Amino acid sequence: MSVIGIDLGGTKLAGAVFRETGTLVDRQTRKLGGRSGEAAGAAVVEMLSDMRHRAAAAGDPAEAAGIAVPGIYAARTGRVWAPNIGGWEDYPLLGQLQAAFPYLHVRIDSDRACSILGEAWQGAAHGSRNAVFLAVGTGIGAGIMADGRVVRGFGDVAGAIGWMGLGSPFREEYRTCGAFESIAAGPGIAAEAARLAASTAGYEGVLRPGADGRVTTADVFAALEALDPVAGQVVDRAVEAWGMALANVVSLLDPEVVIFGGGVFGPAASLLDRIRAEATRWAQPISMAQVRVEASGLGADAALFGAGHLALDSLAGRSPGGS
Amino acid sequence: MSVIGIDLGGTKLAGAVFRETGTLVDRQTRKLGGRSGEAAGAAVVEMLSDMRHRAAAAGDPAEAAGIAVPGIYAARTGRVWAPNIGGWEDYPLLGQLQAAFPYLHVRIDSDRACSILGEAWQGAAHGSRNAVFLAVGTGIGAGIMADGRVVRGFGDVAGAIGWMGLGSPFREEYRTCGAFESIAAGPGIAAEAARLAASTAGYEGVLRPGADGRVTTADVFAALEALDPVAGQVVDRAVEAWGMALANVVSLLDPEVVIFGGGVFGPAASLLDRIRAEATRWAQPISMAQVRVEASGLGADAALFGAGHLALDSLAGRSPGGS
Repeated sequence: MSVIGIDLGGTKLAGAVFRETGTLVDRQTRKLGGRSGEAAGAAVVEMLSDMRHRAAAAGDPAEAAGIAVPGIYAARTGRVWAPNIGGWEDYPLLGQLQAAFPYLHVRIDSDRACSILGEAWQGAAHGSRNAVFLAVGTGIGAGIMADGRVVRGFGDVAGAIGWMGLGSPFREEYRTCGAFESIAAGPGIAAEAARLAASTAGYEGVLRPGADGRVTTADVFAALEALDPVAGQVVDRAVEAWGMALANVVSLLDPEVVIFGGGVFGPAASLLDRIRAEATRWAQPISMAQVRVEASGLGADAALFGAGHLALDSLAGRSPGGS
Repeated sequence: MSVIGIDLGGTKLAGAVFRETGTLVDRQTRKLGGRSGEAAGAAVVEMLSDMRHRAAAAGDPAEAAGIAVPGIYAARTGRVWAPNIGGWEDYPLLGQLQAAFPYLHVRIDSDRACSILGEAWQGAAHGSRNAVFLAVGTGIGAGIMADGRVVRGFGDVAGAIGWMGLGSPFREEYRTCGAFESIAAGPGIAAEAARLAASTAGYEGVLRPGADGRVTTADVFAALEALDPVAGQVVDRAVEAWGMALANVVSLLDPEVVIFGGGVFGPAASLLDRIRAEATRWAQPISMAQVRVEASGLGADAALFGAGHLALDSLAGRSPGGS
């Protein structure tokens, strides 16, 4: 028996076939190519159909599929809000998949929920029932697992940790995406580096405004390696924010493990010791002493594995012994 | 059928008999009288025994009991850490109660867990499955319910929200009880008022250091009513901290309702509109727009009702349909 996981991102689709044991036996990636609305839904149907045929042809038919979506999944309605896919303000993905695959078990969840499910299944939180995935990329979100279940909240919006307030005064730039995200997501780090490089008298480092005026997060981490003072200052500020947010998650939820993932971790993974040290100043000491702080074990595949686990979970529900 | 709830505090014991419907039909309060170690455990046994006899004499025998304890309950071992009861660093309360009442279902949990259970059963979170109780008194703690279950964490320490970091720089006074608690629990509010009254040139209000040099939290709220400027300034700072902490809980957990309780709410309940306004600046907007922010519906009885609900829950576990 096998299951299929699909990770729908804002720009591409990844699909995989998993054995029950968690072994990934087949995978594919496709560009979403700017598809929106029904065309984006059709791309999911097509990839799922192809992966099913490949699994069947390999002699291991798939009985269930899980889909990770880049936004919010409303479990009550089966609809998706995905800000980076046109026309997906309230898209009826579950209905479309059930119509296309009437005999397949299908389950959907947000990419952040899938990321913690994937890490708890086959990654850095393997076997843990109390774990948090902190996804730091162009935005910041958290997948939270408490006693083995994903925390969804009243309106399926739980995990919006990018909105965490970490210090007054309130600044105008927090209004669009939250304080923590403004300071410590990729774009915030790059913008602060550009601002500081332009305003630091006598600064002649690699982060000074070039012909195109652009600084990327990758530029900042490369400059940090080269001991650039602007990069050092910007990263100090991000480390403080990541550390305080880690502390607040640890004090509130007492997890066994917190995983830093997303595009920024990545290059920032070498900062985990400093982030832990910052968190230790703030957090409840018993919880902080026992928590493991790790980089993602699955990297960009965390949500893909989580989608596979969703599928497995949907099958467990069929049998009397399942949960 | 009835159940018994007992709320063990640092200085007193409250006990009640509840009908299944949540009606409180009998209650008692006793001073703990400085009892520690086994004597404190014996006081719980004695009160439970008395409440059982009273329920039986009233023709409504109790089949289960729940106990709220003032600290941490380790569900795996049945032991209690209660900092305000001498000798209760690791006290085997469950074992003692099971030995004394071999035929009674007994369940124990922390006061903060019981407070949210009580409010969800019969208080301001009635019927909610996603709710948070913020207890603000001499300390600050949170009881968190996600999808109908209390969030306990890996080591049963979840809810230590008093340790939430709300702004750098880190201050020495945060080291003993956390940043949020230092600023916004009762003692922190009183200490800040005393400090500010002493250091404000020309201040002649009621909060200036008296013969005994003491300022209480009650003094501060009384002075606030009288538009005292020092009280105003101190409470502004606390409102900002309560609002940011509320925002952070809302963004992370997307609850349906957040309840402010404990001794400070109480007098600070009139500030809930200001606290909500502060939180609205920081929090994830969808979650913030839908969350209810309420004062405790059960006041000082929240944990007592929650203990009663624990007892009911232990009975639900007996039958195949229970959970």
